[in-house]
Amino acid sequence: MDIAQQITWLAVKAREASRALAKVDSEPKNHALYAMARLLRDRKSHLQAENAKDLASARGQGLSDAFIDRLTLSDKVIESMAAGLEEVARLPDPVGEVTRMWRRPNGLQVGKMRIPLGVIGMIYESRPNVTIDAGSLCLKSGNAVLLRGGKEAIHSNLALATIMQLALEKETIPAAAVQVIPMTDRMAVMELLKLKDYIDIIIPRGGESLIKTVYENSQIPVIAHYKGVCHVYIDESADYAMAERIALNSKVQRPGVCNAMETLLVHKKFADAYLKKLLDSFRREKVLVKGCAETGRRDTAIEQATEQDWYEEYLDLVLAVKIVKDMDEALDHIAKYGSKHTEAIVTQNYDNARRFLAEADSSVVLVNASTRFNDGGQLGLGAEIGISTCKLHSFGPMGLEELTTTKFVVYGDGQVRQ
Amino acid sequence: MDIAQQITWLAVKAREASRALAKVDSEPKNHALYAMARLLRDRKSHLQAENAKDLASARGQGLSDAFIDRLTLSDKVIESMAAGLEEVARLPDPVGEVTRMWRRPNGLQVGKMRIPLGVIGMIYESRPNVTIDAGSLCLKSGNAVLLRGGKEAIHSNLALATIMQLALEKETIPAAAVQVIPMTDRMAVMELLKLKDYIDIIIPRGGESLIKTVYENSQIPVIAHYKGVCHVYIDESADYAMAERIALNSKVQRPGVCNAMETLLVHKKFADAYLKKLLDSFRREKVLVKGCAETGRRDTAIEQATEQDWYEEYLDLVLAVKIVKDMDEALDHIAKYGSKHTEAIVTQNYDNARRFLAEADSSVVLVNASTRFNDGGQLGLGAEIGISTCKLHSFGPMGLEELTTTKFVVYGDGQVRQ
Repeated sequence: MDIAQQITWLAVKAREASRALAKVDSEPKNHALYAMARLLRDRKSHLQAENAKDLASARGQGLSDAFIDRLTLSDKVIESMAAGLEEVARLPDPVGEVTRMWRRPNGLQVGKMRIPLGVIGMIYESRPNVTIDAGSLCLKSGNAVLLRGGKEAIHSNLALATIMQLALEKETIPAAAVQVIPMTDRMAVMELLKLKDYIDIIIPRGGESLIKTVYENSQIPVIAHYKGVCHVYIDESADYAMAERIALNSKVQRPGVCNAMETLLVHKKFADAYLKKLLDSFRREKVLVKGCAETGRRDTAIEQATEQDWYEEYLDLVLAVKIVKDMDEALDHIAKYGSKHTEAIVTQNYDNARRFLAEADSSVVLVNASTRFNDGGQLGLGAEIGISTCKLHSFGPMGLEELTTTKFVVYGDGQVRQ
Repeated sequence: MDIAQQITWLAVKAREASRALAKVDSEPKNHALYAMARLLRDRKSHLQAENAKDLASARGQGLSDAFIDRLTLSDKVIESMAAGLEEVARLPDPVGEVTRMWRRPNGLQVGKMRIPLGVIGMIYESRPNVTIDAGSLCLKSGNAVLLRGGKEAIHSNLALATIMQLALEKETIPAAAVQVIPMTDRMAVMELLKLKDYIDIIIPRGGESLIKTVYENSQIPVIAHYKGVCHVYIDESADYAMAERIALNSKVQRPGVCNAMETLLVHKKFADAYLKKLLDSFRREKVLVKGCAETGRRDTAIEQATEQDWYEEYLDLVLAVKIVKDMDEALDHIAKYGSKHTEAIVTQNYDNARRFLAEADSSVVLVNASTRFNDGGQLGLGAEIGISTCKLHSFGPMGLEELTTTKFVVYGDGQVRQ
C-alpha cells in the first residue's frame, strides 16, 4: 500500500469506529479514561524510554531548548496528563443531551439532541500532551479521532496511542476510535486533508504556518484559530489601578500564549493623566514598548511603532501602544488589525461597556477583566481542544459541547402533513 | 474591471455593510421588511413586466413547463412573498440574545451572545421567490447577503433587489446589505467561491449538480444538503392504520421535495401480515413500487429493485421497498444508503422508538410521524433558508438562529489571572 492507501485505510477504520462509539454510554467511556490515567502512571518508565528516543533525535538535530522542553515527558507532565484524563472523565457527557424541547400545535414534540460530529482529524506540533488532551476530549464527546502530531514526537505519540487503545479495548470500545498516524511523511498530512468522505472536521493546532498550510490544502472543513492579536482598550473613565492591573496581567502573566495582549489602546484623556506612569510599570516588568506618535509625545522613552506593529502577534514581552481619541477609533482599530480572538475594555462607563460588548467582533469580549481569561477552563467549559477564531460552528474556546452537533428528534402519535 | 474585480468589489461592499448591519436594532430591520412587502405589492405590475422578459426568454429556449411555472411571478406568488416578508418581520430577532449565562468562582459572569455570521453567499436556481426568502432571513439575522440566482431569472431578481434596497435605504441600512449579483456568467460563481476574505459562508440551494459544483470549487465553507434519500421503517409492532397513513403521506403528499420518503423498510413479520394490502394502497395513489426479492415473494405485481434503487432520490411517485429481518438491518440499511436527511419509524415498542431516535444518524429523526415534517416552518423555526445534511455548524432545517453564531461576553470587576 502507498501512503494514500494507508491513510485512507486508517480513516475508514476511524469512520467504522465512530459509528460504534456514538452508541457507547458514558460509563464505558469514563472507565476507559480512568484506565488511561492508571496506565500512564504504571507505564511511566516505558513512556519516558520512548520519549528519550525523540529527545535524542531532537538534540541531534540541534533543536532549541524551548522545543526540547515542550517535547519532554517529565514526571510532572505525565502526572498532569493523567490528572487531565481524570478531569475529562468527571465532566458531563454531552452526547444525548436534549438541549431544548417544545410542542407544536398538532401535538408533535420536537427536541434538539446532541450527537457527536463523527471523525475528527487533529493536526498539531510536537507537544505529546496534545495527543492525550485531544484523544480524551474526542472520546468523551463520542468522536473518533485521527491524531497527527509533529514527527519529532512520533515515538512518544505512538507509546501514548498504545496506552489509550489498551484502555479502549478493556471497555470493548474499538481501538480505532483513537489512532495516532504512524507515518511522519508530510505527504501523509496532504492525503489526510483529502479524505472528506471519512473525516468530518480538521482541527489544526500550532503555529501560523501550520494552520495556514492546513487551511489552504484541506478539502475537509477546518476549525482553527489563526492568531491572537488581542487588545485592551482603556476608556476615558477607567479606574487607574484596575486599568494597570488588567493591562499588566494581559501582557506579562504569560506573554507567549494566544490570549496575551499585543496592543494597548488608550483613550487620549486617560493618556494625558496616566500614560507615563502606566508605561513605567510595563518597563519595570521588562516589556519593550512601541508606540504611535501620540504615545511618543507623552513618553519619549518608547520606540516608534510601524504600521506592521499593529498586525503583530509578538508572543513576547513587547507591546504596541496607540492613543485613540474615542471608543469609535478603538473599535475601528480592532476591526482593522484584530484577529477576532480576544478584546477587553477597562471602563466605569455603563454605555461604553455595553457598546463594546456588542460591537467588538471577537470570540471573547471582556469588560474589566484580563484577556488571559479566554480559555476553556477559565470560562467554565472544563477543558478545551482549541480556540476557534472562525465563526462557523464554534467561535472561541471549544470544549466537549463544541465537539458535538444537534439533530432534531420528533415524537409523534401518528401526525401527517395536511 | 474584469469579472473577478467586479465580484470582489460587490463582496467588499457586502463586508462593509455587514459591519454596519450587525449594529442595527430590530426595529429598523422590521420596518424595512414591512416596507419591502408594501413595495412588492405596489410595484407588482413593474415586477411582472420584468418577469415577462425572463419568461419570454425561457420559452424561447424551449424550457419545460415545470421550469416556466417555478419562474413565474404570478399574483399569488407575489402575495406569498409579501406575506413571507411580514412573517419574518414578526419572528424574534436572534441577534444579541444571550443564550446562557453563568458565574465563575472568581465572580466573572460569562455569557454566550448570538451574533451574525457576517456575509453569506447564496447560490440557487431559477425560483425568484428564493431571492426574497434568503434576503429577508439574512437581513433579519444581521447578515449581509450576496444573492446569485439562475441566469434565467435575472430580470426578476434585479427588480426584486431594487425593491429590497429601496426599503433598506429608507431605514438608513446600507443597500449593499442585500445585493443580487448582476453578472450571469458562470465565471461569476467561480470567482465568488474564492472570496474567503469577504464571505463567511456559502449556502447553495438547488439540484444535486449545482450543490456538487459549489462544494468542489468553494474555498469558503459550504453549508448545504445534497439530497434527501428519506426512509420510513415500519416496525413489527406498528399499528397498521398509522403505518399506512404515515407511509402514504411521506410518499405522496408532495413527492417532488427533499423530505418525501424514497425507500420504505418493512419488518418481516409486519410484511407477512400487511404488505400486500399496504402496497395496494400505494398503487391506488399511482405510486410505482420497486421491491427487494422478499417483497416480490409477497407481492408479484412489483418491479424488482436494483442495488442502485437504494441510493435513488426519485422525487417522483416511485417507491423502493425492502423487507428487513429486524431493526438492526433497517438501521444498517439507512447508514449505508441514506443521506442523513430524514428517517421515521412507525412503532408501538418503547425500546425500539428510543433506540431509533438515538441511532438513526440523520438531521431529523421521527417516531410515528411523517417525514414531511422536516421543514423549518413545521418544526417551529418560523422559516428556513435550507436544510443542512452536514453536521458542521447546523444540521437540519436552518432558521434565523442557524444564521448566527455565538461569542463569549464576560463581565468582570477587575479580575486578573493568577
